[in-house]
Amino acid sequence: MSNRTGMDYFFAPGSVAVVGATPNKAKGGYNIIANMLESFSGPVYPVNPSREEILGEKCYSSVRELEGKVDMAIVFVPAASVPGVLEDCAAAGVKTAVLESGGFAEVGEKGKNLTRRCQEIASHSGLRLWGPNCTGLVNTDPFIFTPFMRAPEADKKLAPGSLGIIAQSGMLAAGFTLQYVLSGFFKVSKACAIGNKIDVGEVEVLRYLAEDPKTKAVVAYLESIDDGQGFLEVAQGMAGKKPLVVLKSGRYEESARAALSHTASLAGTDEVVDGALHQAGVIRVHDFLDLMNLGKAFSLHPEPFNMASSSGNNVALITVTGGGGVVTTDLIRDFGLQVPELEAKTLQKLSKVFPDWMPPANPVDIWPAIEQKGFNAFSDSLKAVLEDDRIDGVILLPFASRILEHFPFDEIGDGVRCSGKAVVSWMFGDQRYFDILEDRMREFGIPVFTDLRSCVLTLKAFLHFSRLARKA
Amino acid sequence: MSNRTGMDYFFAPGSVAVVGATPNKAKGGYNIIANMLESFSGPVYPVNPSREEILGEKCYSSVRELEGKVDMAIVFVPAASVPGVLEDCAAAGVKTAVLESGGFAEVGEKGKNLTRRCQEIASHSGLRLWGPNCTGLVNTDPFIFTPFMRAPEADKKLAPGSLGIIAQSGMLAAGFTLQYVLSGFFKVSKACAIGNKIDVGEVEVLRYLAEDPKTKAVVAYLESIDDGQGFLEVAQGMAGKKPLVVLKSGRYEESARAALSHTASLAGTDEVVDGALHQAGVIRVHDFLDLMNLGKAFSLHPEPFNMASSSGNNVALITVTGGGGVVTTDLIRDFGLQVPELEAKTLQKLSKVFPDWMPPANPVDIWPAIEQKGFNAFSDSLKAVLEDDRIDGVILLPFASRILEHFPFDEIGDGVRCSGKAVVSWMFGDQRYFDILEDRMREFGIPVFTDLRSCVLTLKAFLHFSRLARKA
Repeated sequence: MSNRTGMDYFFAPGSVAVVGATPNKAKGGYNIIANMLESFSGPVYPVNPSREEILGEKCYSSVRELEGKVDMAIVFVPAASVPGVLEDCAAAGVKTAVLESGGFAEVGEKGKNLTRRCQEIASHSGLRLWGPNCTGLVNTDPFIFTPFMRAPEADKKLAPGSLGIIAQSGMLAAGFTLQYVLSGFFKVSKACAIGNKIDVGEVEVLRYLAEDPKTKAVVAYLESIDDGQGFLEVAQGMAGKKPLVVLKSGRYEESARAALSHTASLAGTDEVVDGALHQAGVIRVHDFLDLMNLGKAFSLHPEPFNMASSSGNNVALITVTGGGGVVTTDLIRDFGLQVPELEAKTLQKLSKVFPDWMPPANPVDIWPAIEQKGFNAFSDSLKAVLEDDRIDGVILLPFASRILEHFPFDEIGDGVRCSGKAVVSWMFGDQRYFDILEDRMREFGIPVFTDLRSCVLTLKAFLHFSRLARKA
Repeated sequence: MSNRTGMDYFFAPGSVAVVGATPNKAKGGYNIIANMLESFSGPVYPVNPSREEILGEKCYSSVRELEGKVDMAIVFVPAASVPGVLEDCAAAGVKTAVLESGGFAEVGEKGKNLTRRCQEIASHSGLRLWGPNCTGLVNTDPFIFTPFMRAPEADKKLAPGSLGIIAQSGMLAAGFTLQYVLSGFFKVSKACAIGNKIDVGEVEVLRYLAEDPKTKAVVAYLESIDDGQGFLEVAQGMAGKKPLVVLKSGRYEESARAALSHTASLAGTDEVVDGALHQAGVIRVHDFLDLMNLGKAFSLHPEPFNMASSSGNNVALITVTGGGGVVTTDLIRDFGLQVPELEAKTLQKLSKVFPDWMPPANPVDIWPAIEQKGFNAFSDSLKAVLEDDRIDGVILLPFASRILEHFPFDEIGDGVRCSGKAVVSWMFGDQRYFDILEDRMREFGIPVFTDLRSCVLTLKAFLHFSRLARKA
């Protein structure tokens, strides 16, 4: 990489020093050096003044010994030692430092002084700082994994994907890395735990992800937005091009106060924040699960969908359970979407699949048709509904069981691909068949959830982004 | 059982005939007879005029051959044959019949006529009818499992529990039996799929569960409430004694219309329904997952909790993640609950556990204290908060990982038991440790969820029921 920016030296450094590396397996400093030696393709240098060797690699007593050899330092030492380490880094020509240590601005006056000293070193030397109080970052291509949790074979487990993640809180980011990133819940391009943001902040990281060709969608958990104007400018630039989902907490006085004590940064008045995020086209959610679910959805399908209507609010249901259709219709209305009547031409097509005694309608209750005509009734009905000029998106409610062996997945995929419309699926029934159902649906860009609320939330987000894309 | 009522002959028959039994493993009639022969303790008689023997048992051509020998018939034959079977049952002295066949009122004029004929036979003979268009019922003590899905060793998998379930829609009830009942998501006393309700309706079943000493809490999914006054009377009688959670769908015009076409029964105007349910003390939810989650919660803890305040709205948080505390505080406020300041005496106790630089507050952000004092900081803080005279309930936010090996579960259990206050837990982090965390928490009656919204919804339901219990 010839024209690297400062941020490239975080996401794609040529060489890395791990300051605070240790052979003690109970420590985070072991996990970092073990992960890095195992998964990073360039040189990795352990730094620790009290060791000669770590995991078979020569250990250095200071980064100063590595002058000119290190692009990035990962720093995991007690807070009080960090300024000294940063001076070493600056002297050795290191370009970026990921600070994973806690004990800074979140721990009172002493920590605030430490923060100021680090910031001074950075601004004098040009060394860029990430964190502190965080797990750092993950990039899947080229591969780098800085978190202080041990993740064996991380480079093999983490296939390159399209989702960018930003998370502010250190512990949460650690948990989400384990629970969602390493588990394959979604495939990420870059996961960024930005911590206390004493230098690199949410705006710079968001801008990098907005411009990153490998990142197609971004989900962000933020407790504070320090540079509101900068954030909104980047968000506006993404609107209709890259989906951006934000969980911005601290919406009430009590929670804003709690956020303040936790991160030492200011949380904005929520009404202002909410209006501005909405205007900038941001999709806002209020629970981590919603954030992760929309991350899954947009990582499967980050492109805008074809919509039939200008409102983009019209939803059809294809369901094997009449009762499920009724409950989903209620939730769709709760979310401000509509379940309109189908066009006459669609009803005509459906009546060929339906039993005589049953007039087709939306929700399309397909079980009697399946009993009469077999499982192709499901895909035939879906195709008819996707061709309806009133319908913007479809929610599927199939039953997970042995019957999935006869399920017309390929025909469903054809219909979805041809129409280009948004489709989301629920699943219920026999859990042994959930993986099969979800894997097949994923092939067609259809996210699958076990609760109806997540289906409706996701379809709404898909349609919202598609509306913005039409204007963009 | 000497003084059996009609309903006892459904839930605890002495002997059962399976009409429509077949050795064809692809058919529901095989599943029913196989399940029943394997798991029912009394005599089970296969009935099918075209077979001599099924699964090694003598097969009867009609129930008439079994005169005086059969308490209950499970009927799974084409709809048109059902009236004839019921006449046989009436002639043979059968007391109850579970009709699992579809093709009745939900399929037009022909089906409506069949329904009327069945009802006439029932009213002339005194034979009671359950269904049709349903999976029937499950009782865990004494054991009976009528659904047409094969469930090997159902009697061994389904340990007796305290939750009663009522579900109207056939397909949903089948799915929920597989997904939640057989999987051990919660432990049930009785699961009732009531289908088209042509004789036994939701009121009679609810009353039976209300009076059943083995059932401590009830969750019900209903598309229609035919006898509103009767339902509300039973619900009022349960208020503050047995928790009752209801998902009543058809809340909008579109969905009410869909419910109508699906079940052929009238769905009430939702405003009236909502007000009446609320007045009767019913906890109402709008998604299946919420219904199942509250079923899990109340099956773990069906008794009312001690509350400190008369409003019962005051929540404290013990969290290892400051960020998680902020997001949860937002959700708690969204749900109309409060996150008040703690009493001075509580803050004093917490300050002994907290680092010097950190003033304790609610949410109680416990990670710095754990880093300083070890994991007992978690249980010490919880005990202090549970003794606070302002706090009605607590949400825990622990981190699932190897650190759970050092987690003070027993001390947490002691604190919860002594206070008698409502406690709910989130979990996030390393999924390999989720089962350990959930199993230990369950011992103390603490339900665990992976999304924060479910934690808050559950705590609100716990407190709501406890408020009713105080008045009852």
